[in-house]
Amino acid sequence: MDLKKLRVSGKRLQSTLEEMAKIGGTAGGGVQRLTLTDEDRQARDRFVKWLKEIDCEVTVDEMGNIFGRRPGQNNALPPVMSGSHIDSQPKGGRFDGILGVMGALEVMRTLHENKVQTERPMVIVDWTNEEGSRFAPAMVGSGVWAGALQRDWVYDRRDITGKRFEEELIRIGYKGTVPCQKFPVHCYYEFHIEQGPMLERQNKRIGAPKGILCLHWYDIYLTGEANQVGPTPMDGRHDALVAAAEMILKVRELPGRMGGNMVATVGEIQNYPNSRNIIPDRVHFTVDIRSWDDDLALKSWDLLRADVEAIAGRHGCPAKIEETWRVNHSPFDEKLVQRVTEVADELGYSNMLWVSGAGHDASYANQVCPTAMIFVPSIGGRSHVEIENTRWEDCEAGCNVLLHCLLKAALEK
Amino acid sequence: MDLKKLRVSGKRLQSTLEEMAKIGGTAGGGVQRLTLTDEDRQARDRFVKWLKEIDCEVTVDEMGNIFGRRPGQNNALPPVMSGSHIDSQPKGGRFDGILGVMGALEVMRTLHENKVQTERPMVIVDWTNEEGSRFAPAMVGSGVWAGALQRDWVYDRRDITGKRFEEELIRIGYKGTVPCQKFPVHCYYEFHIEQGPMLERQNKRIGAPKGILCLHWYDIYLTGEANQVGPTPMDGRHDALVAAAEMILKVRELPGRMGGNMVATVGEIQNYPNSRNIIPDRVHFTVDIRSWDDDLALKSWDLLRADVEAIAGRHGCPAKIEETWRVNHSPFDEKLVQRVTEVADELGYSNMLWVSGAGHDASYANQVCPTAMIFVPSIGGRSHVEIENTRWEDCEAGCNVLLHCLLKAALEK
Repeated sequence: MDLKKLRVSGKRLQSTLEEMAKIGGTAGGGVQRLTLTDEDRQARDRFVKWLKEIDCEVTVDEMGNIFGRRPGQNNALPPVMSGSHIDSQPKGGRFDGILGVMGALEVMRTLHENKVQTERPMVIVDWTNEEGSRFAPAMVGSGVWAGALQRDWVYDRRDITGKRFEEELIRIGYKGTVPCQKFPVHCYYEFHIEQGPMLERQNKRIGAPKGILCLHWYDIYLTGEANQVGPTPMDGRHDALVAAAEMILKVRELPGRMGGNMVATVGEIQNYPNSRNIIPDRVHFTVDIRSWDDDLALKSWDLLRADVEAIAGRHGCPAKIEETWRVNHSPFDEKLVQRVTEVADELGYSNMLWVSGAGHDASYANQVCPTAMIFVPSIGGRSHVEIENTRWEDCEAGCNVLLHCLLKAALEK
Repeated sequence: MDLKKLRVSGKRLQSTLEEMAKIGGTAGGGVQRLTLTDEDRQARDRFVKWLKEIDCEVTVDEMGNIFGRRPGQNNALPPVMSGSHIDSQPKGGRFDGILGVMGALEVMRTLHENKVQTERPMVIVDWTNEEGSRFAPAMVGSGVWAGALQRDWVYDRRDITGKRFEEELIRIGYKGTVPCQKFPVHCYYEFHIEQGPMLERQNKRIGAPKGILCLHWYDIYLTGEANQVGPTPMDGRHDALVAAAEMILKVRELPGRMGGNMVATVGEIQNYPNSRNIIPDRVHFTVDIRSWDDDLALKSWDLLRADVEAIAGRHGCPAKIEETWRVNHSPFDEKLVQRVTEVADELGYSNMLWVSGAGHDASYANQVCPTAMIFVPSIGGRSHVEIENTRWEDCEAGCNVLLHCLLKAALEK
């Protein structure tokens, strides 16, 4: 057959995703399938069953990562790999993560039913705990596999109720015996929703991210002076929440000040004692800065830090500043990225180069082997919410791009 | 004896307060004696024992208010009354409330040991649940007594663990049988710490509040749009926390804009989903406005409301605004207030007229009978915190003022 004419089944992909969306489906139309819960187990069991139906060899490693391997003609060659994650955010959407796993499954099903033989073996992967919302941090399955995180340290992470990661992994029956460590991989493609509005704004169907933005996390702790609000005049107050409010606006202004090629956000705030008639004396808030330009991010932090210190001084609310996490921007493999746009062109899908603002398992894969991602549009740019949505025809288009990217790679000798 | 030369015992008052501070004493040097807890019971038991030691007749009403009555020569006359509250804030101080009850006790002890006969009977009162931090709202004992609150509504209030007010009142053995309702009172004096810095700033020992400021409470609920922070550009965000930050600064600026005779505070904020990498889509915060001038407070709210709506519109974060509670300013009885300054002058204590920014049981008493308060300085203006403090000589001075104010009233035919 002419492999160029090969296409996935959009209908089958849709019904597969719809079946998965029932596992942990929420009243609001989303999905709650937190890592290592019964819902995660149920979805994993279904995935493993489907892998076996198309004669994939299933391996589970000691981090619970599931690998489904389709042999090639030369099994001594490193495989072509693709996948994402089955777990979701609390009240998350029906596409984030699962699209990349079911998309790769649809590719394998298409090859299987067309009896396509590839040169290299192909591997689908479901990485454990990408979201990090039950057990922090995120992306631990791919992180341990890549050698960036320690397995035993991850095993000891606890959820909010005190349950240990390893015990929950055993409980759902997915602590495998195979060591979790990187192996030679020819290349890794991850198919994912954009989780932002740019494809929709530019009216493009396929995004080829050049890589993942740098990520800087900061924590700021302010100390003011608590007092009854009524008897305490405005002058001489040390109101930690007012100081924090000024700082939050500085964070909001930062990207504009720096010329725009970055985002800066305060997502989290704790205020104490948080009583309507007591002046706040302690505030903690987070700052998240992302950019393709590591230097720009660092320079913007220098400016912000000076602002924070000046505002803290002016309000008499000393600031403790923690530089919590810094990851440089991570460019994907140029040739692989280019192949995404070439394949999209061949298939007649509009496309654009873009960047990924969110972290993905692809970040860790990128440390091990040539890596790229394929994005499809998120309606309204919404993600991590129940109404997260992507058109079925876009899912199908992205899956066809994945098919031909993987196929080209798997035919390479 | 020459009654003008009568003085309380500062040492006895101090040791009484120190003994009370042990009940619910905290590691940080404060007191945690929440209403209707075992600590509250223990302090009440001690108080009742002390009342009986000086031959006071003790009555407990169905709200748990404790009245200790010292007969006069003409017991048909309405009594002179004084008191405050034994309960405290969580991690509160050693003076708030308890000073007014133990101060009145010290006055009675002084009269008792000097065998002073008064024309009118005198009553000490401990009002139940002034703080409102375990069961909201505050000042319910005096509120039901004054007829401003419904007894059965208060009985149904629940604490954060779901326990009912009435059941906790029964549990600690202080649900009395006497109906909780106002009775004729000649006048009511409440002795209290200032809980603000003005006496200290003006270097005065005694404050005579003209009354209690008006109190307006508002609740503002903003709705934005949650999204992953990385892939979502700054333009087109609907960040509810950024909108709230602008509003918080408007609240802070309000007193200056209005000319200064008011205070305005945001004490409480909730942010959702409160995750460092998700743009906040829901924020609730409170606004507390207080002034001696009811109109000024209303006008300032009109301005603020317009600001809130404009900011909400600009950010695309619609605001739901609730006008939660409004109490007009409450002037005390002019003659009684004047007597506080006169007595302080006679005793040689520096003094000033002032206002009370905080609500007190005296607010409700003021609805029933001529009422005034006596303030002594709070060191650093601090209150509702463990380091709340007042000099012992100021406690003694305030207590002497209370003695002579009560004595003059109790001698009136």
